[in-house]
Amino acid sequence: MLRKISTLLLLLLVVAVVKAQERTLAERLGYPADAKLLIVHADDLGMSHSVNAATLKAFETKLVNSGSIMVPCPWLSEIATYARANPQADLGLHLTLTSEWTHFRWGPVTPKDRVASLLDKDGYFRLSEAEAAKNADPKEVEMEIRAQIEKAKAMGIVPTHLDSHMGTLYQNKELFDVFLRVAREYKLPVRVAREWGPRAEVLQASLSANDVFIDRVLDINPSVAPQDWAKFYSDAIRNLKPGVTEVVIHLAYDDGEMQGATFDHPNWGAAWRQRDFDFFTSDGFRKLLEENKIKLITWRELGKLIAK
Amino acid sequence: MLRKISTLLLLLLVVAVVKAQERTLAERLGYPADAKLLIVHADDLGMSHSVNAATLKAFETKLVNSGSIMVPCPWLSEIATYARANPQADLGLHLTLTSEWTHFRWGPVTPKDRVASLLDKDGYFRLSEAEAAKNADPKEVEMEIRAQIEKAKAMGIVPTHLDSHMGTLYQNKELFDVFLRVAREYKLPVRVAREWGPRAEVLQASLSANDVFIDRVLDINPSVAPQDWAKFYSDAIRNLKPGVTEVVIHLAYDDGEMQGATFDHPNWGAAWRQRDFDFFTSDGFRKLLEENKIKLITWRELGKLIAK
Repeated sequence: MLRKISTLLLLLLVVAVVKAQERTLAERLGYPADAKLLIVHADDLGMSHSVNAATLKAFETKLVNSGSIMVPCPWLSEIATYARANPQADLGLHLTLTSEWTHFRWGPVTPKDRVASLLDKDGYFRLSEAEAAKNADPKEVEMEIRAQIEKAKAMGIVPTHLDSHMGTLYQNKELFDVFLRVAREYKLPVRVAREWGPRAEVLQASLSANDVFIDRVLDINPSVAPQDWAKFYSDAIRNLKPGVTEVVIHLAYDDGEMQGATFDHPNWGAAWRQRDFDFFTSDGFRKLLEENKIKLITWRELGKLIAK
Repeated sequence: MLRKISTLLLLLLVVAVVKAQERTLAERLGYPADAKLLIVHADDLGMSHSVNAATLKAFETKLVNSGSIMVPCPWLSEIATYARANPQADLGLHLTLTSEWTHFRWGPVTPKDRVASLLDKDGYFRLSEAEAAKNADPKEVEMEIRAQIEKAKAMGIVPTHLDSHMGTLYQNKELFDVFLRVAREYKLPVRVAREWGPRAEVLQASLSANDVFIDRVLDINPSVAPQDWAKFYSDAIRNLKPGVTEVVIHLAYDDGEMQGATFDHPNWGAAWRQRDFDFFTSDGFRKLLEENKIKLITWRELGKLIAK
């Protein structure tokens, strides 16, 4: 009798799991299948004071509702103080293996001699994601990203999600597999999108039905002229498809510090980040969300879908 | 005959060396004994963009004519670029064993696990010079300051002198002895002053007649109210004694980056550094130098007194 009940329960569980997989992500989160759900996500917290100050200001508007932190960067302590004081904030880790500004550099959390494949001749992370991925020993990558997660936790940050600065961990299957293995172990959702174009083929083979992945990522790129910034984002929001979209933005002020860091690198530079700040903290953006019936959600909700 | 000439030459050499030691530092540098010689020295280069930008601007006035660089700090590359382009600049190394701002931190050049005595629980240098000196293993200090010098050289900086950020290397005899040993090996002059009050007794026992030391260091302190800043410096310059004085200043702009770094630490903070910048780049300071017949010299000249 007991055996029969167990078998029945098991059967019901299997049916439930299969059903769960059939439902859309929006439904699994408790929303209608056609709901338009958006995470407004600021990258690069901890990088500089300007990034921190602008992003924390944007969080106050509640229009920007998520962000991720670069543990190796010099201004980590400032954002760790915020995280400890605001445990409800949706803060993830922006796992970092590059140091992209010519005059403003950082290196690993792990002792340098153990992660030599990640470093340039001056002992910093490499300038580009392509160079970083080409040279990185996956074992050293795993050691370093684990060290970043552990350091964040030791400083009182309880991350809700993981992503990868400049996408280094999406550059090839070996690095992506390391990223997924560590994320699964910590039971944290990662920035992976169902609609990811060319990269999807390489990366999706590594994913399993138990991984939580959002529907799409929206980000601006250097082909958009500064005067078209608001139009690009406004059009994208008006045309937002149902499901979970993450808009990935980069906030900072166009001030001395950011101008110094990005002097030779206008893409994702000081003025770029000020434009993102201006748009995503504007009343215009608030109205667009209302008019298009877009609901803001966070990675914290997505993380609840992962069996703990 | 040859032997007699050798003996005579040796005797002459000994007499010359003894004579050299009797002469004042000003005379050894080729100036009259009563010359008033001044090094206007900006500390903390490489710490932040604001420090770099303000100090390089001050160098353009030629009223600030020397500075020292913090190798472990995130903006080192910016000042290394300047150093490579301006090989005549009088740039030393501000050997760094502390990381004093609550929200803006840095750590060692050496792999962290080899210099554990220098680190706080988050893996950064300690916040204060007293804590740093109390915990530091002198062997690890030696490894780290050698690593800082070698990294600076590898990045194209040819240092003219050495000093110690927040004076950590002057905190006790063990650390001072490490500092002197390394400086002698690199044949670089260090910030050591003949008139150094209470610390002199402890430290002077370590000095030899072959070390080059200046006559005095002048620096402002938190007891001077902001409105008395110019008066303090002006009085000090009017009363400057003959010999070699180094005025140690801290330049930066009172901007977002420095305000963020020093928000809980007004001493040596953003407004403090702006006041130093304003005074030492002013026409008033230029006039004071002229009226008081003060000649600016650099550590490069002092370094020439060290037998290579």
